[in-house]
Amino acid sequence: MNRIPLQRVAMFFLLATLSVQAQIVPDDVRANAVTLRDLAMRDTIAYELLESLTMEVGPRSAGSAGDAAAVAWAVQMMQGLGFQNVRTEEVRVPHWERGSISAHITAPFPQRLVATSLGGSPATPEEGIHAEVVRVESLNELRALTSDDLGGKIAFVDHVVERAKDGGGYSAASRIRSCGHYAAADRGALAMIIRSAGSSVHRVPHTGSMLNNSIPADIPAAALANADADLLAYQLKTGKPVTVHLKSSPRYLPDEKSANVIGEIPGRGDLADEIVLLAAHLDSWDLGTGAIDDGAGVAIVTTAAKLILDRGDAPRRTIRVVLFANEEFGKDGAKQYYRNHAEVIDKHVIGLEADFGAGRVWEFASRVAEDALTIVDEIHSLLEPIGIERGNNKASGGADLSPMRKAGMPVFGFTQDGTYYFDYHHTLDDTLDKIDRDDLNQNVAAYVTSAFIAASIEQDFGRLVPDTRGDRSCSAADDDWAT
Amino acid sequence: MNRIPLQRVAMFFLLATLSVQAQIVPDDVRANAVTLRDLAMRDTIAYELLESLTMEVGPRSAGSAGDAAAVAWAVQMMQGLGFQNVRTEEVRVPHWERGSISAHITAPFPQRLVATSLGGSPATPEEGIHAEVVRVESLNELRALTSDDLGGKIAFVDHVVERAKDGGGYSAASRIRSCGHYAAADRGALAMIIRSAGSSVHRVPHTGSMLNNSIPADIPAAALANADADLLAYQLKTGKPVTVHLKSSPRYLPDEKSANVIGEIPGRGDLADEIVLLAAHLDSWDLGTGAIDDGAGVAIVTTAAKLILDRGDAPRRTIRVVLFANEEFGKDGAKQYYRNHAEVIDKHVIGLEADFGAGRVWEFASRVAEDALTIVDEIHSLLEPIGIERGNNKASGGADLSPMRKAGMPVFGFTQDGTYYFDYHHTLDDTLDKIDRDDLNQNVAAYVTSAFIAASIEQDFGRLVPDTRGDRSCSAADDDWAT
Repeated sequence: MNRIPLQRVAMFFLLATLSVQAQIVPDDVRANAVTLRDLAMRDTIAYELLESLTMEVGPRSAGSAGDAAAVAWAVQMMQGLGFQNVRTEEVRVPHWERGSISAHITAPFPQRLVATSLGGSPATPEEGIHAEVVRVESLNELRALTSDDLGGKIAFVDHVVERAKDGGGYSAASRIRSCGHYAAADRGALAMIIRSAGSSVHRVPHTGSMLNNSIPADIPAAALANADADLLAYQLKTGKPVTVHLKSSPRYLPDEKSANVIGEIPGRGDLADEIVLLAAHLDSWDLGTGAIDDGAGVAIVTTAAKLILDRGDAPRRTIRVVLFANEEFGKDGAKQYYRNHAEVIDKHVIGLEADFGAGRVWEFASRVAEDALTIVDEIHSLLEPIGIERGNNKASGGADLSPMRKAGMPVFGFTQDGTYYFDYHHTLDDTLDKIDRDDLNQNVAAYVTSAFIAASIEQDFGRLVPDTRGDRSCSAADDDWAT
Repeated sequence: MNRIPLQRVAMFFLLATLSVQAQIVPDDVRANAVTLRDLAMRDTIAYELLESLTMEVGPRSAGSAGDAAAVAWAVQMMQGLGFQNVRTEEVRVPHWERGSISAHITAPFPQRLVATSLGGSPATPEEGIHAEVVRVESLNELRALTSDDLGGKIAFVDHVVERAKDGGGYSAASRIRSCGHYAAADRGALAMIIRSAGSSVHRVPHTGSMLNNSIPADIPAAALANADADLLAYQLKTGKPVTVHLKSSPRYLPDEKSANVIGEIPGRGDLADEIVLLAAHLDSWDLGTGAIDDGAGVAIVTTAAKLILDRGDAPRRTIRVVLFANEEFGKDGAKQYYRNHAEVIDKHVIGLEADFGAGRVWEFASRVAEDALTIVDEIHSLLEPIGIERGNNKASGGADLSPMRKAGMPVFGFTQDGTYYFDYHHTLDDTLDKIDRDDLNQNVAAYVTSAFIAASIEQDFGRLVPDTRGDRSCSAADDDWAT
């Protein structure tokens, strides 16, 4: 028989006592959170919402008819689900239309290229742009060129995005998309073409905003599908001059009115003026039907709130769902929300955004005051059973929450498996069939558990030190800008 | 110590003796075949040929500029590799051009559909066709409708192709493509749209010939990507009338001259007038660059022959590589070859066609005279080490060999892993990056081993009983037509 040393027994009781003393989330809140979590795992609402949004509204880029249809859909949906204070807050958005595009290699070996215009691209002249192509692999290589190299030519930035769980390759690629053309134009290039900022091996090129801080673009820009970038790179490797004919007709129409769509579960009692903010964006790019970006987010946060609503017994704090307008092409909804609510940002005790598809959550990160970390750890203990590790305290919180987070609002960050996210994101392929129902539900479970606890407990998450930096520029110094 | 019963020992010697007596393929031929097989597994020619064809020629549909470029490429390539009697045999081909297409659901929930015209489709009127959609799931369901059901409407045949190792789902789907529109037109439909005859989950719809025996089509037809067929099916399931606006501009141009491209390794000695026929098709559809269909086949059979050529010591029979014109849209090259060589089809001792991509060969089937099966089994014993099982004696031999096989020419059939073939086949996605070099080489190894032995041994494979059936019609009785 093994003997347990006395000091070990003493240590056990000491720790058990400490643990009881340290517990911040009350037992009944924990129990209800677990019930909600388990309910979410076998839920059907999230998928049904996403199906309805993608199949009945579909593409909904800022200012388009689909955008207006999405706002109407969201208001009706929120009212139908029984949320309180359902309302829209007007957001002025740009209205850019893709038009058509054709791209062909004309020499040395004529072939068609599958391409799509980048968001915000001006049109080519009607006869197109026909010029020699100069290839670089990075933004720094592009910046190192002069007008002797690029004048009168087409810059081709051939940067490969590898598939990765954390979607890590996207950051540098999207930086090329939103900064490369300014550098190319400065050096006299007539147009920029890039390898898609995505990992798809299918011929569905990847769009996305080409603008940095809404600064207009001077030259047309387009992305090639990966196979087409391979083709262009192959022909360049022969050493013969390679010419491309690019013809595209995107255009700006007058600005439109869109809206953030808001619904609430009003808090019950003394903390009702404090807000737990659940965020996703309602707009999508125009190519796909916006299933992963960001129909999934809309479905996740709305369903998390709906499950809490259906308990019948509202938490102490107000849970506010905000479906933001125009995240994709200028983050106008987020900026407008910040302006509208600037006086009460300090009442926003925590923000949770969902905008990375419906891949399984594998990590629960945060950005909260140091002394609130134990609460986050307690919440995490309820997420561990659904496969979620504890992350660090450096979560970015997401694009739409950024103005509020920079003003001091703490955030949670659910890191999702992004292995396939950039196969579909911003392409024709962003459609409902890419969604796994179980993974979607696991996301809902993560959001509902944490939002319910945050809205139910006495404590809050402190405030963050405000981030007073200005806008991120396209200078090389800002390339590694940390969020 | 175990004792071996005497009768077992006797049996062993009996079998060993029988085995020696039965061996038809001489040891030196076996040894040389194994050397060629192992050389093929680490070869680079096949990939280089395929890279050159897809990157420098690209799409090469019958009658197009790419078709002419492919013929020139193939002649130069065959001469460059050192084949003898390199020549073209003229083939008259139709010239159908895809033009543009747009398809939209206009009610109940307006959305764009990603579609492509089927090969041979006439154009819609300039204003398009705008009509209600009637959905069926099969050819028989379509045939069961009347003009009361379909008159003035658009028929939507929503048949799903599941991904399968043997590509089995394609047969029924391609039958819908090439027969459905005749039935729909007979019943007064204005157009036919089908779910793509492919398993891709990407928005790259699947084209292919819509004609049965070159009978012209009366109504336009188009294929939807799978996600778009899902969208249309969803909207139909709401029970509301669904209308689609289809506008397309394909057209026929005057017939063109194309060619079968032929190169040989002339046989050495008494059997030189006998032919081992290696076949693939040079044309492709116009959407992709024809890497899997059938650039891979071109690379496989050409490289197999090249490896034999490079031994320096030609086999007894002539090895003839034929790269056929226009397999995709009427099999004109195969028909022309048959006409040109009708008098000497009986000198074609065996045919080997490669036209199912570059998936790993997992089975070696055949269609030879019964008394030649032991030779096939002996060849198989050399293919077993590279992962190939022995199949049955019912191989079809491939589309281009069909006229010769029906006239009595025996064939080998290398069954490839087709799990992903119909993800890419006949779509924009048929590009070089879908090719696995090792799998491509394993194909070359299978072809070179068997072709070398067939060309080197004394024996032949007998003749098949001629297949005297006429052309396969679109009647239901021909639905399950066996090849």
